[in-house]
Amino acid sequence: MQKIVIIGGGSGSYNLLRGLKRYTQDLTAIVTMFDSGGSAGICRDEFGVLPPGDVRRCLLALSEESKHNLLLRQLFSYRFDKGTGLSGHSFGNLFLTVLKEITGSDIEAIEAAAQILKIKGRVLPVTLDRAHLCAELEDGTIIQRETNIDIPKHDPNLRIKRVFLDSPASAYCEVIDAIRAADKIIIGPGDLYTSIIPNLLVEGVPEAIKDSKAKKIFVCNVMTKFGETNDFKASDFLGEIHKYLGSSCVDVMICNDKQVSAEAERRYAEEHQFQVEIDKDAIAKTGVQLVCKDMIFEPDVIRHNPIKLADAIMKI
Amino acid sequence: MQKIVIIGGGSGSYNLLRGLKRYTQDLTAIVTMFDSGGSAGICRDEFGVLPPGDVRRCLLALSEESKHNLLLRQLFSYRFDKGTGLSGHSFGNLFLTVLKEITGSDIEAIEAAAQILKIKGRVLPVTLDRAHLCAELEDGTIIQRETNIDIPKHDPNLRIKRVFLDSPASAYCEVIDAIRAADKIIIGPGDLYTSIIPNLLVEGVPEAIKDSKAKKIFVCNVMTKFGETNDFKASDFLGEIHKYLGSSCVDVMICNDKQVSAEAERRYAEEHQFQVEIDKDAIAKTGVQLVCKDMIFEPDVIRHNPIKLADAIMKI
Repeated sequence: MQKIVIIGGGSGSYNLLRGLKRYTQDLTAIVTMFDSGGSAGICRDEFGVLPPGDVRRCLLALSEESKHNLLLRQLFSYRFDKGTGLSGHSFGNLFLTVLKEITGSDIEAIEAAAQILKIKGRVLPVTLDRAHLCAELEDGTIIQRETNIDIPKHDPNLRIKRVFLDSPASAYCEVIDAIRAADKIIIGPGDLYTSIIPNLLVEGVPEAIKDSKAKKIFVCNVMTKFGETNDFKASDFLGEIHKYLGSSCVDVMICNDKQVSAEAERRYAEEHQFQVEIDKDAIAKTGVQLVCKDMIFEPDVIRHNPIKLADAIMKI
Repeated sequence: MQKIVIIGGGSGSYNLLRGLKRYTQDLTAIVTMFDSGGSAGICRDEFGVLPPGDVRRCLLALSEESKHNLLLRQLFSYRFDKGTGLSGHSFGNLFLTVLKEITGSDIEAIEAAAQILKIKGRVLPVTLDRAHLCAELEDGTIIQRETNIDIPKHDPNLRIKRVFLDSPASAYCEVIDAIRAADKIIIGPGDLYTSIIPNLLVEGVPEAIKDSKAKKIFVCNVMTKFGETNDFKASDFLGEIHKYLGSSCVDVMICNDKQVSAEAERRYAEEHQFQVEIDKDAIAKTGVQLVCKDMIFEPDVIRHNPIKLADAIMKI
């Protein structure tokens, strides 16, 4: 059975895991721990827990999709839309927060939730250290905390020069072990600066990826994100990954080459977001193998199709 | 196997159920639905659910006490001691509230929680109607909402003349069925006017108890409660039960006859609460059989000992 490690967070990881769990049970999700907004941010600030949102999504993705497990899955994904002090909170985040309070440990809380939700595979926080994500914009402005980068309050036309952590964070030991033992390491899909790269800012992670004998696969975003990756082409995404990895170690890059619908294109354009252009020549120069396929589905938002993406990864 | 129905709410029912579940699996807890304070009151006011506190306690009492179930039990009994808008909330109450939001029904929420917590027996809300408990004091003052009776803001030296509901409530159909089918019906232990009698204010309940062929057993309180049962003797408790039952149908009354410790006596006296005197002659006149036994344990507060109480009930 292939040992697959995915690195990310957010809905990109959620979709990828839902697809991959059909192909292998030896799945490890390594997730960013720098979320600072919304329900997860409140849990982090008021209870001192690691921000639970990304862990929650990955646990859900890997949980048994049986009828018997349905209610627990619904509980875990429920978000309060009313209630003083409750509105906006994810019940799953509170669930993880209370488990941390009971067990006294973020890791034990995740393991307990994993058991309760009957998950296949593992979800690992990239670090147990508390740090905040920061960004330096092209004009030198420093943006502090992940949520202010993710939902920009600054001029979103300004490009991000670099992201960094406000204090050093070291990789959780099992993260390094999982990366070392992996047959395939999948970076992405997800928001480049707020879901993917934050993992690469953690001490030990880029080195472990570089040293691992695993096939390293980067899944490029389908759309640009305003305030993060304005006008990015596929090679720009790859270039940023390599910049933070500290070496050109990606073996394969997966891109969606199906044109998004005119309707979606129009809606995204209103938000200054566009389909990522696959600039094959520039990618070819990096030596990275390019895999282009129809890989999207379009419910309300454009997402990677879990099955198609997992299928492409398994075939590499 | 004996079919046992208990009627109450609060920590009295919790203790009794923990004892009784060792003797029979055919246990039904009928619980008051008029709690209006604290976490349960907020859930009730802001989400429109039935107040979940008494249901939660009974579910916990009946849940499997295995190592495997420990974390879920701890989750269900966890109370937030911090967090904006969360502090004071019981996680178990939120759990039941979210289950109601997901399933759309209070009953389905209780059944779902019962399944998740692996309970033996059933927990039934006495009514699905929304009503508030009120009390009329001896000076004619009307107190509205259960929490204001339970934690009195009025002069607690005034006796309660009567309690009533602010709007009619009918018994949940399964409550009537359970009472009819019971071999034994246990009323109490618990706070007389806020946990026990409220069940008897629900239309259909007193009639069903009277008509049932079950042995009817009333468990008398060990201590008086200031603001509720000042200076009550055992026969006063029994008299109030009979008043609200509308007929003298109790067969057996169980009283604790072990003297509480001097230390507990002193602490309770500071709160104007005293051990209930068993006035045997007055009880004998009612024709009710009196069972007196050592039935208490004293951790921080004086409670009925689950095993001793259950044992006494099973022997009747």
